[in-house]
Amino acid sequence: MVNAQVRRNKRVVQKCYLSGPVKESDMEVVMSDTVELALPAGSTAVIVQNLCISIDPWNLTLMAKKDASGLTSAPLTVLTGYGVAKVVVSGHNDFKVGDLVWGITGWEEYSLISDPNSLFKINHTDLPLSYYTGILGMPGLTAYAGFYEICAPKKGEFVFVSAASGAVGQLVGQFAKLTGCYVVGSAGSDEKVTLLKEKFGFDDAFNYKKEQDLNATLKRCFPEGIDIYFENVGGAMLDAVLLNMRNYGRIATCGMVSQYNLEKPEGVHNLINILWKRLRMEGFVVLDHYSKYRKFEEMVVQHLKSGKITYVEDIAEGLESAPTALVGLFKGKNVGKQLVVIARE
Amino acid sequence: MVNAQVRRNKRVVQKCYLSGPVKESDMEVVMSDTVELALPAGSTAVIVQNLCISIDPWNLTLMAKKDASGLTSAPLTVLTGYGVAKVVVSGHNDFKVGDLVWGITGWEEYSLISDPNSLFKINHTDLPLSYYTGILGMPGLTAYAGFYEICAPKKGEFVFVSAASGAVGQLVGQFAKLTGCYVVGSAGSDEKVTLLKEKFGFDDAFNYKKEQDLNATLKRCFPEGIDIYFENVGGAMLDAVLLNMRNYGRIATCGMVSQYNLEKPEGVHNLINILWKRLRMEGFVVLDHYSKYRKFEEMVVQHLKSGKITYVEDIAEGLESAPTALVGLFKGKNVGKQLVVIARE
Repeated sequence: MVNAQVRRNKRVVQKCYLSGPVKESDMEVVMSDTVELALPAGSTAVIVQNLCISIDPWNLTLMAKKDASGLTSAPLTVLTGYGVAKVVVSGHNDFKVGDLVWGITGWEEYSLISDPNSLFKINHTDLPLSYYTGILGMPGLTAYAGFYEICAPKKGEFVFVSAASGAVGQLVGQFAKLTGCYVVGSAGSDEKVTLLKEKFGFDDAFNYKKEQDLNATLKRCFPEGIDIYFENVGGAMLDAVLLNMRNYGRIATCGMVSQYNLEKPEGVHNLINILWKRLRMEGFVVLDHYSKYRKFEEMVVQHLKSGKITYVEDIAEGLESAPTALVGLFKGKNVGKQLVVIARE
Repeated sequence: MVNAQVRRNKRVVQKCYLSGPVKESDMEVVMSDTVELALPAGSTAVIVQNLCISIDPWNLTLMAKKDASGLTSAPLTVLTGYGVAKVVVSGHNDFKVGDLVWGITGWEEYSLISDPNSLFKINHTDLPLSYYTGILGMPGLTAYAGFYEICAPKKGEFVFVSAASGAVGQLVGQFAKLTGCYVVGSAGSDEKVTLLKEKFGFDDAFNYKKEQDLNATLKRCFPEGIDIYFENVGGAMLDAVLLNMRNYGRIATCGMVSQYNLEKPEGVHNLINILWKRLRMEGFVVLDHYSKYRKFEEMVVQHLKSGKITYVEDIAEGLESAPTALVGLFKGKNVGKQLVVIARE
């Protein structure tokens, strides 16, 4: 019988720095040598068993040789990202064995978390744990901080969300409806468009792949213009949005997923509208908003339980499916929040 | 002897909508038929004699068939813009004959101002009246609102100003120094670069026409990066600046003069930095900040009188010189604030 504290650790490693679109062959699932699940005396780290990992556009930026933020992963190291996990060994006073947590972890079965202060404890175990990779985790807080803080929405305003069926977008749209805004979303398939309108309560939605002229599409959807653009894609969509913004509009730059796979980003030509229309375009990163997490969590848990907010996940099973899930994300294959379940509680 | 209240009115008219770069032949100086300088009974308008007109990049945008802001002038109408004037006939209780004012007027000797509430009375006649086309007028208030409100500067921050020797830029740089910032300016001639460093107290300055690689230039000038960019030019300079901004930087979009003469604006490729670096890019229009005028005026008058702020003008004589002055502005010919004196007090 294997000692309970000794394991081989299955993991997804990055084989090389990314160049061009991410491919499954950029990653490899490997099995480590046998490792002991134990900490040296005096350590304040924890060891966690990973239960779910979150597949986010952000993962990709870590795999480039050097991204604009200066962050990078090295080849042959395990991929990192957000996940839900259970503490199996603890050297930290605030965490005990069996605690459920979410935060940055590895794409592997077991991870050493050197700084457990980066983890959030999971309080609401009556909701699916996987929600903490999405609506109750990083993407949810991203939607909350981006919409309420950066967009500063007012009742009756016109809101446009791109990549609207994704983890962040679906929640932004629902926040906009709760605020009394008119909200339109774009997505990359008819199935997603139906989801936006029928499941998430968007007032309107369109499949951007079927539109010939995004400027005309936005004029049709927003005859009075756009007050708030929640930006997830960048490039041509941003250019069309700039032409359709109203005076004093706000653009919350949350992502530019259309640009991450490009050698040279597309040019955006209509920035002069920032001047004419007194627009504010502001980037934000969820890390800066962690202090709002508990307030956000209570709000969303309450709305989830009362049915005022709904949530759709796209769940892949097993660590082996993670590379395909990541590649699929950039091809728009996921419907709803993409995650991978590694182990079930 | 000519009746004092009857005049022929020399004026600059727009001959056609602009297409491509502005040319002198787009404008024409004409003499009106004899007009009576009088108002109908009950009118609340005023008639002013124009003393100086301000030559601003903004003038150009009014001459296009339709600019992005929706504003436009019609062909064969007199050009409009900011100016300094003297009230010669008044139907308005707040204005009396002889009052000196600044505000929107015509490129002509005499103008009818239908809504005199748009005019500011000039209080400080111990300073040159022409200052009210620049440092004490619209460009000055633009620098003040843009720098103090939109840029939210802090002592010790790194500030970059493009078109820095112009009416707005020279004042932004001096405000930055008064705030305890490090400030670098760009301009289009060595003479202007000298002016920035020796007259306006910029810490450094460069002639962008002599630089091969603006990204490298900015890295040289700002090894630690840029906190605040006061944007007057757009295009390639903005692209280079985005690569050199620091986290939480601010870009005040005041103008994009490099783009006004283009059929299709240049593409800007590095907007992803707005996300990575949590930048705020915000456009503003001075009209929205008129309520701050008197506070601004008192501050700048005090600094002008104590010598803490200095000012350079490029004065052309006579209404006939206005078309050349406007064309020259877009070729960077002016050194300091460009204005035209029509009549002297």
